[in-house]
Amino acid sequence: MNIGFIGLGNMGGPMALNLAKAGHRLHVFDLSQLAVAQLVEAGARSLDSPAAVARAGVEVIISMLPAAQHVKSVYLGEDGLLANVPKGVLLIDSSTIDPHSAREVAAAASKQGNPMLDAPVSGGTGGAAAGTLTFMVGGAAADFDRAHPVLSAMGRNIVHCGDSGNGQVAKVANNMLLGISMIGVAEAMSLGVSLGMDAKTLAGILNTSSGRCWSSEINNPYPGVLENAPASRGYSGGFGSDLMLKDLGLATEAAKQIRQPVILGALAQQLYQSFSLQGHGGLDFSAIIKLYQKDL
Amino acid sequence: MNIGFIGLGNMGGPMALNLAKAGHRLHVFDLSQLAVAQLVEAGARSLDSPAAVARAGVEVIISMLPAAQHVKSVYLGEDGLLANVPKGVLLIDSSTIDPHSAREVAAAASKQGNPMLDAPVSGGTGGAAAGTLTFMVGGAAADFDRAHPVLSAMGRNIVHCGDSGNGQVAKVANNMLLGISMIGVAEAMSLGVSLGMDAKTLAGILNTSSGRCWSSEINNPYPGVLENAPASRGYSGGFGSDLMLKDLGLATEAAKQIRQPVILGALAQQLYQSFSLQGHGGLDFSAIIKLYQKDL
Amino acid sequence: MNIGFIGLGNMGGPMALNLAKAGHRLHVFDLSQLAVAQLVEAGARSLDSPAAVARAGVEVIISMLPAAQHVKSVYLGEDGLLANVPKGVLLIDSSTIDPHSAREVAAAASKQGNPMLDAPVSGGTGGAAAGTLTFMVGGAAADFDRAHPVLSAMGRNIVHCGDSGNGQVAKVANNMLLGISMIGVAEAMSLGVSLGMDAKTLAGILNTSSGRCWSSEINNPYPGVLENAPASRGYSGGFGSDLMLKDLGLATEAAKQIRQPVILGALAQQLYQSFSLQGHGGLDFSAIIKLYQKDL
Amino acid sequence: MNIGFIGLGNMGGPMALNLAKAGHRLHVFDLSQLAVAQLVEAGARSLDSPAAVARAGVEVIISMLPAAQHVKSVYLGEDGLLANVPKGVLLIDSSTIDPHSAREVAAAASKQGNPMLDAPVSGGTGGAAAGTLTFMVGGAAADFDRAHPVLSAMGRNIVHCGDSGNGQVAKVANNMLLGISMIGVAEAMSLGVSLGMDAKTLAGILNTSSGRCWSSEINNPYPGVLENAPASRGYSGGFGSDLMLKDLGLATEAAKQIRQPVILGALAQQLYQSFSLQGHGGLDFSAIIKLYQKDL
Repeated sequence: MNIGFIGLGNMGGPMALNLAKAGHRLHVFDLSQLAVAQLVEAGARSLDSPAAVARAGVEVIISMLPAAQHVKSVYLGEDGLLANVPKGVLLIDSSTIDPHSAREVAAAASKQGNPMLDAPVSGGTGGAAAGTLTFMVGGAAADFDRAHPVLSAMGRNIVHCGDSGNGQVAKVANNMLLGISMIGVAEAMSLGVSLGMDAKTLAGILNTSSGRCWSSEINNPYPGVLENAPASRGYSGGFGSDLMLKDLGLATEAAKQIRQPVILGALAQQLYQSFSLQGHGGLDFSAIIKLYQKDL
Repeated sequence: MNIGFIGLGNMGGPMALNLAKAGHRLHVFDLSQLAVAQLVEAGARSLDSPAAVARAGVEVIISMLPAAQHVKSVYLGEDGLLANVPKGVLLIDSSTIDPHSAREVAAAASKQGNPMLDAPVSGGTGGAAAGTLTFMVGGAAADFDRAHPVLSAMGRNIVHCGDSGNGQVAKVANNMLLGISMIGVAEAMSLGVSLGMDAKTLAGILNTSSGRCWSSEINNPYPGVLENAPASRGYSGGFGSDLMLKDLGLATEAAKQIRQPVILGALAQQLYQSFSLQGHGGLDFSAIIKLYQKDL
Repeated sequence: MNIGFIGLGNMGGPMALNLAKAGHRLHVFDLSQLAVAQLVEAGARSLDSPAAVARAGVEVIISMLPAAQHVKSVYLGEDGLLANVPKGVLLIDSSTIDPHSAREVAAAASKQGNPMLDAPVSGGTGGAAAGTLTFMVGGAAADFDRAHPVLSAMGRNIVHCGDSGNGQVAKVANNMLLGISMIGVAEAMSLGVSLGMDAKTLAGILNTSSGRCWSSEINNPYPGVLENAPASRGYSGGFGSDLMLKDLGLATEAAKQIRQPVILGALAQQLYQSFSLQGHGGLDFSAIIKLYQKDL
Repeated sequence: MNIGFIGLGNMGGPMALNLAKAGHRLHVFDLSQLAVAQLVEAGARSLDSPAAVARAGVEVIISMLPAAQHVKSVYLGEDGLLANVPKGVLLIDSSTIDPHSAREVAAAASKQGNPMLDAPVSGGTGGAAAGTLTFMVGGAAADFDRAHPVLSAMGRNIVHCGDSGNGQVAKVANNMLLGISMIGVAEAMSLGVSLGMDAKTLAGILNTSSGRCWSSEINNPYPGVLENAPASRGYSGGFGSDLMLKDLGLATEAAKQIRQPVILGALAQQLYQSFSLQGHGGLDFSAIIKLYQKDL
């Protein structure tokens, strides 16, 4: 299949590579020549603008961009995708942005005859490279079906979340809960250890009790509990604290727009902001436990 | 085995019944004649004070009381257990109290030659009746081994948490995390549904993603997501909000004593306090979602 | 002086009337015919668009609009003020918006030769009618001097806060602190009264101690403490809870953009959002004490 | 007048000295010989136990102790004050403790014929030395009148707060509000300065607007705003952060006992706990602004 791909960064690059490996013919654009070169080496065709990608005769265009402003610019800009793409081409935006903006762009696309899906991912750069991402997809069922084989080349778990924007809704809701849970685990582990318990014993109990969650089982923030978790290697790698901060910001912003309280969510955002102020934004988000244990 | 049992309330009653069913000879005390009568019917011997239980020739005494003040009074009071019990009798307190008090009472018992374990439970009245409780046990390993067959008649999961007091530590750490997670799930579900997602679809995504936790999987607070959860029957039954409030109070108090911050834990306590002020303290603790969705 | 005025709502209407009373010749625009009619009765000239106001031969144009999107549209829109106003005309925006947007619009104005000031107010509709508003003004000192006599016809306290945008900065910082203080007073009064103190006695002590603040002295949230405060008339009138919510949203949004934690500010926003969800957004912002005392 | 005084620490020492200077005959006890020596030099008589003070023929006994456990021990202990004091002697406890304990001790005193007042102070060690403390007094009006001349030798502002315990209630309510306000000012100043405002200009605006409070006017946390505030001398002197933490702990504990939510109060406590964990507990409580500005 001829597929356009815009945005070849830490996530987009390996995703596009997986599409190429799967045998698709890629037509790519990125501002970084280095990023483009890697794809060209894998057989992709380099184009010099989103508009050129739109006019390259592709069936599907996938974008992976840093924030809503870039998505709006690439899709809605004067010489952007919508101004150049033929009717019927399927548009898939995998950027993580607020649901409101996602719906706005999708509505504009739909108005001129292009089906559009929001399809943010979870799984990080590791999942992007391994092709094991989860895609949370919002849009019409028929378009989801059409996108499924393409997304399957990049991910393992492709979930239809409902109408347009709902992929982003699922992503921000999940990641807000993740941020809250991680801080909750950090507090529970700190409290228990400070009160005299062995960290591994405590984690074992939480994981077989009602406190268990992904953050206690898979990414426990206490060093030494899980050998392969970021906590056991100085909090390097993993999902960065500043990325969690960004997602919490999307969640509280989306909540504000619909007048929905998210009390712990807002506090979690502030705690990650404080943590970032202390200079730790680049560490895995489990490092938030440093707010609670000065020796970690 | 001859076993003393003090405190035959909603939890202690069914726990003692399971011991009786397992063939043990029980010597019981409770202020409520009604509670005692049920046990007598099951073959137990009724005694008129903790002191009488202490002198009844038992090998083990188990207590299940509402709060630290009752535990201190029953064990340390002028005519209490310690003033009357022969050396060597094993004492097991299954009340949920603060770790500091648990250690204080155990130290007093140890000083006069009685091994003591703190062994708070999780699993609620359902688990007490079914004999499927989890026991989190603090104390010496040899005493834990001695208690194991007795506790096994009342629970399915008997966990040694380390030294004296650590059973209580595990309990408060777990339940603080549980309270935080539940509010986090309530916020994530409310946000997602308010932004347009179907509740069941959203829960399904959380449960297969990094937001998953006991509160999203087993006791999801959104009505209709889980047929058998309290949320689907008006939040009746389950683990009451006021009990969660009590446990959050134990956690923040224990944290204060050791100067350990628990930021989300303290906020969770306040939110359950606010919820209780609105008159909802008797509902299952998943009902906290009512703070976020006025129509639930 | 010939003065243009755009936005004649609850605040803008009485502000413009005070300018008319002071002898200025007004050229006004508002979408509401009723609002315009009141000003015409007072001698103002009605125009049918911001563009018409821009071309009306005025020396100064003042705008008073609900939110940043309206300000951007009126100033930067295709047929907006900047596209039509002659060089040198002084532009004053008294809307309360985020500092970033204020600076963006002022920079665009400056680029084409129009000095611009951000000049949000405090004092509410009462201050607008009485001409006793406080103006917090951001922009060049010379422009501030030029604006001073005009603003003095509408307010009593005209403060220069520094460069462009700083009027908005002062406003959001002050109102965030105000929201936090009000909730703090609500909690302190609720705690003291629930613990057995007389409300007036407690307020008297706070007001002569280190807890004193505008919210305890001038707008005490406990009914009966201050005869003329909203709390003593069912929380009607005053500064609405939903307006406080809006300002807290501006504060946390501005903080997010510069990566500045505002922990209590974010929690105050969430509490006002919860209060609004309960249907109380129209009450004076001191009514937030209802979250703490179910009988108030 | 013959006056007993128990507890001659940083606060009690200078308070007792002021009584001596006013011509009263003091009979004192403290565990520290050094503290006692200073009073003896000023003419006081040294006694070797609270019991001895109780039997020394005094009309009034004043105590100034660190925490509730010391107050209970001194008053209710086996050989304590109540076991030894003649009927009718007026007892005044100036310690800052929880209202519940204060009422418990006063009730025991009253039962055996001794009127008792709780009379915690504000004003710090400076106010204690200068004799300018504020006394917040709980107890019967006649006892308050009797105590007034004695307290006036140590303080300037002697306030009757109502029945027994209400002095403590006023103190914890005021100090909880103070802690919240200080953090609020820290956030507002940090936000404004980070957004580009001059700190003094911003403080000036807050202090003439609705955000004004004791913490912005008298103890502004931003360095350089007030020449004589702790912020301008490295946060030395003043009211220590760990003392604020203690008072916030008393407030949230008192709130818990009566099931009263204090949401910002609890969060303020946690933030001061976090600040203390970072090793800053000895700095003036305005230093909490360091949580928000990494360069301060």
